[in-house]
Amino acid sequence: MSDLPVSPLAPSQFPGLLPVPGVEMGAVAAGLKYQGRPDLLLMEFKAGTVAAGVFTQSKMPAAPVDWSKSALATSGGRARALVVNAGNANAFTGEKGAKAALKTAEYAAKAVGCAQDEVLLASTGVIGEPMDVTGFKKYIPRIHAGLSANLWRDAAKAISTTDTFLKGACRVVDIGGKRVVISGIAKGSGMIAPDMATMLGFIFTNAPLSAGCLQAILSKATDKSFNNATVDSDTSTNDTVFAFATGAAFHDEIYEDAEDENLDAFKRAMLEVMIDLAQQLVRDGEGAQKFVTITTLGAENDTAARAISRSVANSPLVKTAIAGEDANWGRIVMAIGKSGEEANRDKLCIWIGGQLVAHKGMVSAKYDEATASAHMRTREIDIKVDVGVGSGTATVWTCDLTHGYISINADYRS
Amino acid sequence: MSDLPVSPLAPSQFPGLLPVPGVEMGAVAAGLKYQGRPDLLLMEFKAGTVAAGVFTQSKMPAAPVDWSKSALATSGGRARALVVNAGNANAFTGEKGAKAALKTAEYAAKAVGCAQDEVLLASTGVIGEPMDVTGFKKYIPRIHAGLSANLWRDAAKAISTTDTFLKGACRVVDIGGKRVVISGIAKGSGMIAPDMATMLGFIFTNAPLSAGCLQAILSKATDKSFNNATVDSDTSTNDTVFAFATGAAFHDEIYEDAEDENLDAFKRAMLEVMIDLAQQLVRDGEGAQKFVTITTLGAENDTAARAISRSVANSPLVKTAIAGEDANWGRIVMAIGKSGEEANRDKLCIWIGGQLVAHKGMVSAKYDEATASAHMRTREIDIKVDVGVGSGTATVWTCDLTHGYISINADYRS
Repeated sequence: MSDLPVSPLAPSQFPGLLPVPGVEMGAVAAGLKYQGRPDLLLMEFKAGTVAAGVFTQSKMPAAPVDWSKSALATSGGRARALVVNAGNANAFTGEKGAKAALKTAEYAAKAVGCAQDEVLLASTGVIGEPMDVTGFKKYIPRIHAGLSANLWRDAAKAISTTDTFLKGACRVVDIGGKRVVISGIAKGSGMIAPDMATMLGFIFTNAPLSAGCLQAILSKATDKSFNNATVDSDTSTNDTVFAFATGAAFHDEIYEDAEDENLDAFKRAMLEVMIDLAQQLVRDGEGAQKFVTITTLGAENDTAARAISRSVANSPLVKTAIAGEDANWGRIVMAIGKSGEEANRDKLCIWIGGQLVAHKGMVSAKYDEATASAHMRTREIDIKVDVGVGSGTATVWTCDLTHGYISINADYRS
Repeated sequence: MSDLPVSPLAPSQFPGLLPVPGVEMGAVAAGLKYQGRPDLLLMEFKAGTVAAGVFTQSKMPAAPVDWSKSALATSGGRARALVVNAGNANAFTGEKGAKAALKTAEYAAKAVGCAQDEVLLASTGVIGEPMDVTGFKKYIPRIHAGLSANLWRDAAKAISTTDTFLKGACRVVDIGGKRVVISGIAKGSGMIAPDMATMLGFIFTNAPLSAGCLQAILSKATDKSFNNATVDSDTSTNDTVFAFATGAAFHDEIYEDAEDENLDAFKRAMLEVMIDLAQQLVRDGEGAQKFVTITTLGAENDTAARAISRSVANSPLVKTAIAGEDANWGRIVMAIGKSGEEANRDKLCIWIGGQLVAHKGMVSAKYDEATASAHMRTREIDIKVDVGVGSGTATVWTCDLTHGYISINADYRS
């Protein structure tokens, strides 16, 4: 957790996360970088748990990313443990980094009593400093001795870095008449961008799914949630989303097909959890004062629509205009134009806070700047554009670019 | 010109620009937005002058961009006049904007005595406000009455907006034993990015070239100069680079082939002028405190190298680290990783200020942070990376991201 004031966009409190049958957790202060706060998390899952992962697209992946990709592949998507540390990213650390990851998995596998490739890893923190995991040898068994089903707040705290509030979300849903819990935690405040920039998101459920089915659901939901969140367009070396499904409380049935309609309600609920977490990441964007929703309509296709929404969301000039509470739709025009996607200048329409500002390539005759300015002074900014070439749509969430972002990032070595 | 303090990265003075045979100029205060300063420029060229242009890649081009593209096409690259105004971009102004461009060209064609398609236009300023050119009807003849060969400073001032210093560059060179002058002016401080973001650059010479030859030289030189400058990654609706070649003082000879070796020295000199101007744009980046050169080696090819250099140059986290004088090479690793281009993590090398910081995927054993920090405290920051996959190279110039950028852009409606 950061010493900074809590983001003005934060939810009023950490939500009540329900225990997930088959999932236990614990955290300690391992002192990797921070003092007097938990920074090492161990999660244990019952035998038979399956896991799925989505990883950073960075060409410079961190050691724990390499490890977890490989572990998921060799285990066939089985998982018994997750270890996460904050303070050191174990990224760009060469062979030493790979060894530190291996050692961490060894300690966890021994404590839990499982194969090494049933241990998944994630790290967040400073890049390029060798990570000393000597202490993990004593800390991991110590955590294991005190595991509990309901330490969500500790878990969320242990994975945080510059976060100003803890992030969690929970839904309960039925599958075939049986109760399924979906609890998720996440961390991230800077470097949150499409393609999974420095953020960690972990989703836990007792749904009875095959590994392939869980991966299919996770990949699709990630694309509709975390990949639509952007703070500063930067992408980290460590971004990871994991989902774990224990199947606890279910007996024979295992759902293999992500398209099975018995899973529809479950998939909706899991997507809700992930959108909730993704929006919380944006609400903790470094220096953020406003939460911004940017919707593109009328693009060539959905991919083009997302590129346009992202171009607007990541434009420093648009983001500073929002910080200045200026309904500067000219900069929105500029950002649409630079996206590289097809857009018809002479059909372009722009709405700010629901008001039609620009219509068919010109300022709207009915545009009332006072109304737009009043909207810009609120916390939740809504921008919608129709680029007039097709039926592609996409929504992206971002925040404004403020002096706070500069202060945090010109001083903090992340 | 801006009321802001002059950029600390500015050259000590506006350079002495030589008159270019066949070129005259003048400017007045037309009061489009600014008061008490020239904001309307008219340049006149002798009969026989050829012109070439490179325009914004934006899908939302401004009316003067549409006009000039079309005029160059119909005139076959002949030009007798250039009209530029500051304060209103005449962008996203619909049919009214197209009419305003047409009227401006009409007034200039009448004053100079040429065809309308021999008049090129450029505008810079606020987007989306209709541009009232009624006053141009009297101002353009008034300027024309006082044209002179050596009003470079007025010309540079008339095209400026948030610029904190005037930008010009000049070289003299021989073609076939005859003296050729190349004088150039430019404007731009924010939204300067690859693919010609809000910047205007105008190059004037008396070289005896065909229109096609001039266009080939200009296009290639733009790619090696203005397209390697980036301030905040944003791209404007109005970016334009024009070159004009009068052929004055030459008689029979016209060079048709840009590859003619008699033009080698000329091409080098013209590229020098354009690089000089491009670097001046970066030196006036909004809020800039440091001039940053980012060189990529070892990429798959030159295009990939430029994408990597740009990814580093445009990363908010890298730019704020530089503002904070922090030799945070971890963020450089991150930015290389997110570029999407091939890079070998385990061969990656990074130099800061000439010192090898990271070597083959890890911090260098000899890395001395004090030396790196001393370099980061200077005005001119030098970052070099070798991504270890091929022989592509590229250099990009940028500046840091500071509180000044936020202050300027959260308040100014551009």
